[in-house]
Amino acid sequence: MESKSVNLIPLRTDFTEKHNNICIFGSGDFGRSLGYKMLQSGFSVTYGSRNPDAADMLPRGVEVLSHAEAAQKSSVIFLAVHRNHYSFLSELTDVLQGKILVDVSNNLKINQYPESNAEYLAQIVPGAKVVKALNTVSAWSLQSGTLDANRQVFVCSNDSKAKRFVMDIVRSVGLTPQDHGSLLAAREVENYPLQLFPMWRLPLCICAGLTVFVFLYCLLTMVIYAAVNDNKDVSYYIAVSIPNKIFPIVSLMLLALVYIPGVFAAIIQLYRGTKYRRFPNWLDRWMLCRKQLGLVALAYAFLHAIYTLIIPIRYFVSFRRNNNIIEQILTNATRSKFALSSTWRSDTYLALGILGFFFYVLLGITSLPSVSNAVNWREFRFVQSKLGYLTLLLCTGHAMVYGWDRFLLISRYMWFLPPAYTLSLVIPCVVLVLKLILITPCLDKRITKIRQGWERVSKSQKAASLKNGKVTV
Amino acid sequence: MESKSVNLIPLRTDFTEKHNNICIFGSGDFGRSLGYKMLQSGFSVTYGSRNPDAADMLPRGVEVLSHAEAAQKSSVIFLAVHRNHYSFLSELTDVLQGKILVDVSNNLKINQYPESNAEYLAQIVPGAKVVKALNTVSAWSLQSGTLDANRQVFVCSNDSKAKRFVMDIVRSVGLTPQDHGSLLAAREVENYPLQLFPMWRLPLCICAGLTVFVFLYCLLTMVIYAAVNDNKDVSYYIAVSIPNKIFPIVSLMLLALVYIPGVFAAIIQLYRGTKYRRFPNWLDRWMLCRKQLGLVALAYAFLHAIYTLIIPIRYFVSFRRNNNIIEQILTNATRSKFALSSTWRSDTYLALGILGFFFYVLLGITSLPSVSNAVNWREFRFVQSKLGYLTLLLCTGHAMVYGWDRFLLISRYMWFLPPAYTLSLVIPCVVLVLKLILITPCLDKRITKIRQGWERVSKSQKAASLKNGKVTV
Amino acid sequence: MESKSVNLIPLRTDFTEKHNNICIFGSGDFGRSLGYKMLQSGFSVTYGSRNPDAADMLPRGVEVLSHAEAAQKSSVIFLAVHRNHYSFLSELTDVLQGKILVDVSNNLKINQYPESNAEYLAQIVPGAKVVKALNTVSAWSLQSGTLDANRQVFVCSNDSKAKRFVMDIVRSVGLTPQDHGSLLAAREVENYPLQLFPMWRLPLCICAGLTVFVFLYCLLTMVIYAAVNDNKDVSYYIAVSIPNKIFPIVSLMLLALVYIPGVFAAIIQLYRGTKYRRFPNWLDRWMLCRKQLGLVALAYAFLHAIYTLIIPIRYFVSFRRNNNIIEQILTNATRSKFALSSTWRSDTYLALGILGFFFYVLLGITSLPSVSNAVNWREFRFVQSKLGYLTLLLCTGHAMVYGWDRFLLISRYMWFLPPAYTLSLVIPCVVLVLKLILITPCLDKRITKIRQGWERVSKSQKAASLKNGKVTV
Repeated sequence: MESKSVNLIPLRTDFTEKHNNICIFGSGDFGRSLGYKMLQSGFSVTYGSRNPDAADMLPRGVEVLSHAEAAQKSSVIFLAVHRNHYSFLSELTDVLQGKILVDVSNNLKINQYPESNAEYLAQIVPGAKVVKALNTVSAWSLQSGTLDANRQVFVCSNDSKAKRFVMDIVRSVGLTPQDHGSLLAAREVENYPLQLFPMWRLPLCICAGLTVFVFLYCLLTMVIYAAVNDNKDVSYYIAVSIPNKIFPIVSLMLLALVYIPGVFAAIIQLYRGTKYRRFPNWLDRWMLCRKQLGLVALAYAFLHAIYTLIIPIRYFVSFRRNNNIIEQILTNATRSKFALSSTWRSDTYLALGILGFFFYVLLGITSLPSVSNAVNWREFRFVQSKLGYLTLLLCTGHAMVYGWDRFLLISRYMWFLPPAYTLSLVIPCVVLVLKLILITPCLDKRITKIRQGWERVSKSQKAASLKNGKVTV
Repeated sequence: MESKSVNLIPLRTDFTEKHNNICIFGSGDFGRSLGYKMLQSGFSVTYGSRNPDAADMLPRGVEVLSHAEAAQKSSVIFLAVHRNHYSFLSELTDVLQGKILVDVSNNLKINQYPESNAEYLAQIVPGAKVVKALNTVSAWSLQSGTLDANRQVFVCSNDSKAKRFVMDIVRSVGLTPQDHGSLLAAREVENYPLQLFPMWRLPLCICAGLTVFVFLYCLLTMVIYAAVNDNKDVSYYIAVSIPNKIFPIVSLMLLALVYIPGVFAAIIQLYRGTKYRRFPNWLDRWMLCRKQLGLVALAYAFLHAIYTLIIPIRYFVSFRRNNNIIEQILTNATRSKFALSSTWRSDTYLALGILGFFFYVLLGITSLPSVSNAVNWREFRFVQSKLGYLTLLLCTGHAMVYGWDRFLLISRYMWFLPPAYTLSLVIPCVVLVLKLILITPCLDKRITKIRQGWERVSKSQKAASLKNGKVTV
Repeated sequence: MESKSVNLIPLRTDFTEKHNNICIFGSGDFGRSLGYKMLQSGFSVTYGSRNPDAADMLPRGVEVLSHAEAAQKSSVIFLAVHRNHYSFLSELTDVLQGKILVDVSNNLKINQYPESNAEYLAQIVPGAKVVKALNTVSAWSLQSGTLDANRQVFVCSNDSKAKRFVMDIVRSVGLTPQDHGSLLAAREVENYPLQLFPMWRLPLCICAGLTVFVFLYCLLTMVIYAAVNDNKDVSYYIAVSIPNKIFPIVSLMLLALVYIPGVFAAIIQLYRGTKYRRFPNWLDRWMLCRKQLGLVALAYAFLHAIYTLIIPIRYFVSFRRNNNIIEQILTNATRSKFALSSTWRSDTYLALGILGFFFYVLLGITSLPSVSNAVNWREFRFVQSKLGYLTLLLCTGHAMVYGWDRFLLISRYMWFLPPAYTLSLVIPCVVLVLKLILITPCLDKRITKIRQGWERVSKSQKAASLKNGKVTV
């Protein structure tokens, strides 16, 4: 611990001890909020302005100078200016030489410009060390102090010293910097705050489509059929009865849709005899949104569970039950026969449903970021694949036992349409049958080999390989 | 990758290869536990003691020397001594010159001393590099190895090299260091382990107050009224029936209390015409505990859901139901008329309640730290604001449809007190009406402008501004 | 910000600007996948191969050279070769001098070799800077890009500069590096991906054992007894009724097992008069799996809750209820008497159960990694200890009030076996009684003293201590 050794990150110590000066270009909303925050955190702040006299809206205690003067006072300049105005910096190239220039800008649209703002800035001021940072925080959250949301600040730069310096400043104002590598990542960093659940769009669309379809199907076979055929108004089914058909049916479909792309991928790999060729785009996209599909399916399963549990509280149900009892007494006052098979069936489908729901919830919990970060890849695959198929199996069984032989009773077919529950069984059964075929030893062995890197060698390749001998290392 | 370049962080490599020596001042509980842990992790440990011979309680395998001798043997000294005894270090100033001095101390009360222990230490031994660390871990958890809780260790120092060195040691003993910046943060770091849910105090107090109030209200209108007026003992309501009134009512009130400060803030900003003035203190405090208020509300909603779902299992309920049926048969053995409106009402309020509860749970899940860290600010605001108001709307609707026209029936007023459910509707309705007014285009546009930094300029300011021209950048 | 200062981490800037060259030894599955990923991330890749001509399976755009040539082209070499083939590196010692050698290998079994692969590598090539990294990611997940699971990459090395360099590369390919210290940690890092829930094995075994035992007990006393004694077939109990006995009974037992080791530990410490001696191994192991035991208990409690809530929907239950009503009317058509005590009992045990379940869930939520990281040690202990005992108390009360006086009615004893619920009460009652004794002021004070480091001094120690005076600092 020789005291002669160079001080490694001298800047850090400097600014915390001497309350280093920070320079901000731009007196707009973000510039002002940033200034407030910096002052609060013990920095002295200098604003660079085209017109240093018109500083009435800036926080008290700051200095306002011309751009060139302000830049000279500090080693780090936060650029809180719209990209359109970056051109004025080209006049300051000399002053900005070697300075850290922090680009905090955001765009209005994703991929608005050919290159990211930060890379554009680096082109304009080639001598400066451009750092992209702080664009993920809003002026509002900076200033209000009530940082309910994300405190993470993505930082990227081609100059690691400058990056570290900015990360330290970020930390000083109570935010959490996260290193995102070089300026190549600036585009991604700039797009990030503009996103509104991009991964959820496709799953939610699929879910909405299925929901509408099942709703119309149920409306037709339950409400409209009753109105037309029996002249009965059962429109009150819309509040609880029909949703409690939609939720389980769509949930089971979605759960099967989570596992079908994996089956497709295995078939494609088997057919191609290699894993070194890209899947078709639609399959790639589908595989990437499996987690979101699964969570939407879980949400519907949760709703189905509660909708089922409130059944005995419904006025309609208790009315019908009471009426049944009274009817029974009035018409035929003997004890009704106990149907053992009905007991078995009712208890079995309830038990299957509960167990299926339990594993559903377990899958949901393991997909929480902090939980999935705590397990290794083998454990994660075990849960998501083994437990996932178990869940699918239990839920499919639940629907089958629930339906029992009803799909055989033609009397239950309204206008030749099968009962709604049969819809939910098509995809899961296909998935389960395909999976069953794929895990037969002969196919399973081949897939495992392919996934470990084995390739079915074509004739020309084989010739080449025979000529050269086998590469072992 | 020239081998001539200076070795950047040489200490780290040193101590892992040579099992560097660690020095500990203080043979109290924490000092001993720390010694054990260091020995276990492969360090050699030297204790500095006033009386090196009395070392019978220290872990086996350590060396015990005088303070000065021990300090010379190591580049880093852990100071496991109470702040009151720091004075003895002033004699060791020469020996401690350039050494890393790790302050692990805690106080008994929050803000017990004018300056933090670490800053006080830095004043006493100005030549040493003081690092604050390890105060968040207890001796017990250090030693037992069963680190169920938090493995995070906050580290702060004005010397970044020293800080990095200590962070590496912390990592070596299996804990997770977290950089908290300069020694200015030491006070916060020292206060941290003394806190017991400081953010939860206010929400829990509000919740307890409301709970007691609603309980007494229900007791009066349900139990005492029945005892006095009808001479009936319904004290068994206390176990389930009354809680199942308290939980939904207080939950809805609390949920509305989460959204009311945002409405107040908007009104204040509209009135002031600027966002650059601080809110009153009470509003600030209120806004900061919104998340906790919401989670307490969710807990009550969860309890309400289960309390409702067990209704059909209750002896009291099934007894009453059976009796109703028997009564019906005995008195008037005809089928009772099916009330379509009752069906609609019952199904609607159940459906609204379930959907409200679903979004409630969704809000709760997104407030988990790992989930809220994975969304950007725009997404977080979307969930917490848009979905939050949807939840409030659904739950208010649930309560309204549940109550229906009962608040109009004067016969339901016990001692002129309105039914309990009306209490829960007051605040939510106020919030929803105010919000509805605020999102009218004209007001919404103005608030958006204000939040983007626009200010209503007063006359004097306008004059100044006109004189100087407008600041554009 | 003098431009003369040494560039601190020059490598980083280099490779992002010049798209530094990466060398990979090994053209197996992982080597190829890594190559693809590196190419995608903008690196140029050189493969080192024994037979550079046979490169038909490698990704397009890479260079294939002999090992020595390839190594010279890059400062960092990824070694995607099985440990058994490491010996070929001994010939390359000169070329590898000063190079960063990244060991990505995994073993097939935990602790397969006496030393970790990375340490073995460091012995073979003493001049290279060995870094262990990337072994936690699979070739499949590297290549497919669908990194559902863990993006964390554990990195450890004795050379901190090399480690930082590799961490930057890891970050560049979209993964999250995590510093695991020196190469001593390599064994742990290599074992990590082979683990399959090692902490869950014991709790799950205990749970499975108890489940089987309670299942057989219930089968005997409920199904077989009815078949033998009453000649009745109640085998349908197996679907719902018996599970809904198993879940609550085992859950309560497991919850008590979570708190019993803490009680044992306190008794041992009291007896020994010190906390500075290790607990017996079985107790240590038990204490380490308390969290997992608690979560299994929570899972069972969750299942019990749903199994209970679906009771009114079961065919069997509604059949029996309807029959009871009809029977009542046929035999004795008068209103049955309202039993106030039954109401109290039913409502009380339901309320206790709900509250117990609520705190159970709360305990579960606080054991989520991201939540427990957000609380300090004092808060965590408060929740896990205080709320934990409250949960145990509520659940024990729930079981007691549920059972009421049934354990006294000898008529309920089938073949002299007590009702199943009594089984669940034994351990919780023991824990609660012991805890009650331990928190009596006299014992509590002594335990607190012991846990703060106080020791009951034996005679010989006392003598020594008297001779030397007391160590104060």
